[in-house]
Amino acid sequence: MLPVVVVHGGAGHIPKERTEESTIGVKEAARTGYAILQRGGSAVDAVVEAVALMETNPRFNAGRGSVLNIKGEVEMDALVMDGRTLDSGAVSAVRRIANPVQLARLVMEKTKHLCLTAEGASKFARSMGVPEVPEESLITDYAKMRWKKNLEPDANPVECQMGKMGTVGAVAVDMDGNIACATSTGGMINKMEGRVGDTPCVGCGGYADNKIGAVSPTGHGEAIMKVTLSRLVLFHMEQGKTPEEASDLALAYMKERVDGLGGVVVVDHNGTWAARFSSLQMSWAAAQQGKLHFGLFHGDHFTEPVEEHT
Amino acid sequence: MLPVVVVHGGAGHIPKERTEESTIGVKEAARTGYAILQRGGSAVDAVVEAVALMETNPRFNAGRGSVLNIKGEVEMDALVMDGRTLDSGAVSAVRRIANPVQLARLVMEKTKHLCLTAEGASKFARSMGVPEVPEESLITDYAKMRWKKNLEPDANPVECQMGKMGTVGAVAVDMDGNIACATSTGGMINKMEGRVGDTPCVGCGGYADNKIGAVSPTGHGEAIMKVTLSRLVLFHMEQGKTPEEASDLALAYMKERVDGLGGVVVVDHNGTWAARFSSLQMSWAAAQQGKLHFGLFHGDHFTEPVEEHT
Repeated sequence: MLPVVVVHGGAGHIPKERTEESTIGVKEAARTGYAILQRGGSAVDAVVEAVALMETNPRFNAGRGSVLNIKGEVEMDALVMDGRTLDSGAVSAVRRIANPVQLARLVMEKTKHLCLTAEGASKFARSMGVPEVPEESLITDYAKMRWKKNLEPDANPVECQMGKMGTVGAVAVDMDGNIACATSTGGMINKMEGRVGDTPCVGCGGYADNKIGAVSPTGHGEAIMKVTLSRLVLFHMEQGKTPEEASDLALAYMKERVDGLGGVVVVDHNGTWAARFSSLQMSWAAAQQGKLHFGLFHGDHFTEPVEEHT
Repeated sequence: MLPVVVVHGGAGHIPKERTEESTIGVKEAARTGYAILQRGGSAVDAVVEAVALMETNPRFNAGRGSVLNIKGEVEMDALVMDGRTLDSGAVSAVRRIANPVQLARLVMEKTKHLCLTAEGASKFARSMGVPEVPEESLITDYAKMRWKKNLEPDANPVECQMGKMGTVGAVAVDMDGNIACATSTGGMINKMEGRVGDTPCVGCGGYADNKIGAVSPTGHGEAIMKVTLSRLVLFHMEQGKTPEEASDLALAYMKERVDGLGGVVVVDHNGTWAARFSSLQMSWAAAQQGKLHFGLFHGDHFTEPVEEHT
């Protein structure tokens, strides 16, 4: 059953003209993570590089392609967690970084802290030699269009957010049975300056524990925080639920208790995985035993060989 | 059994010359919270005002009296959570604010977000008319002395932190059975600029749910985050453990799994409360049924009437 990697490219209602690109993006990310695992790479390597690929892809709300805050700027959150040690690294409201998830990994590996925010995160990036990129290089025309649309007085950014594209994330178990998760996002469209969502908050925007499994969520960040969604899924698994049962229980609870929609990708320590969502759609892909699984709508479960025959 | 409020003034090893002041401080805070509850105030009112009092008190590592970051500056984190709605508000790495917990409450009540960080939090404070205070007004001679001492090459800030004084926090249940928690801190001594600890992270630095109870923790922030300590205590309570049993289980797990020490104050929805710690000391006080309970060392449980007879 090992190794395995599962990725998501955000929950919500993905516009028809973007569904194909979103599916291509998550499949590429799952293949990238799986190739790392197959050559003996760690779960942390796999989730960070899978997420970094989606950050670089302008079709997702993370890195390049991030939604804009109310001022039209990009502020990003990212998290990585290593299930061996429960160590994690996060950045919040960081600017002008191409791959926030890689910076989060440096926070985990090179500091005694678990989270650095805003200008402090930028200073740390400079001290590590991480290049600062021009803000414009992160901003797509699509993000600008949506920002302007949501400045209108009757706009509903939460609905618009759920209606388009979301956070990206990945979970993996490597050949040694080590487990990790990573999540990265531009946050909520037209958010206030300095708004921090669920992503960099351990237990909300992700959690990984070798003894249980790992979760990376997507959806309405504030709802995810209210129910500490990632840790909640894992608590259900500790009580004997499968990844699929645990995900469905936690997502149903989030809907009922705080009226929140979203989705999760989950693995347990045996390599059993799930990709579940309460939103209309979630783009997801998983790679295991040479096979690539993927889907977008409820009930979708397509497969093809991981090795592409071209 | 209702109403009830329990507060802490930090876990660790409190120097002898400061123990009396720390005990006076937590007793005052518990009395303040209890008076609010007795006149029909909400649990949120009680925890916010109890914590604000300890922020104003220079003897605690929150608000005035906060520890300094590596540059000798004050950056503060705070959280408040309302167990009725699971709504919460937080600020991280905020500067020049006398009472971060009150700003966190404004984030909860006046925005659609749950957390604002750094300069974004400051801008929100200005927009709400919260006065900016001079940084020097938050810095005590004691904090400056400890900052300088920890700049020395052989310093051990984590040990020093645990060896002195910590985060402040409160949990309460009001007459209507509503539950809340609040936590506030200057963070870890000589931390990197922009370091965010457990406090503003929902489920780590606090959690409140009317259906279960509430927790406010103190101790080594990074260890608290690794085990999502507050949510962990409440999960044990959901499984039928008492607040005391749940606290002891979660603190023992934090010690065993990630070598972390700390403490918690806890209430359940019936008003049963606990103040437990794995560190050498934790200053705590609780007020219930006209009686004030307090202690500092393991085994301490002193009582006196809430109404002071002077």
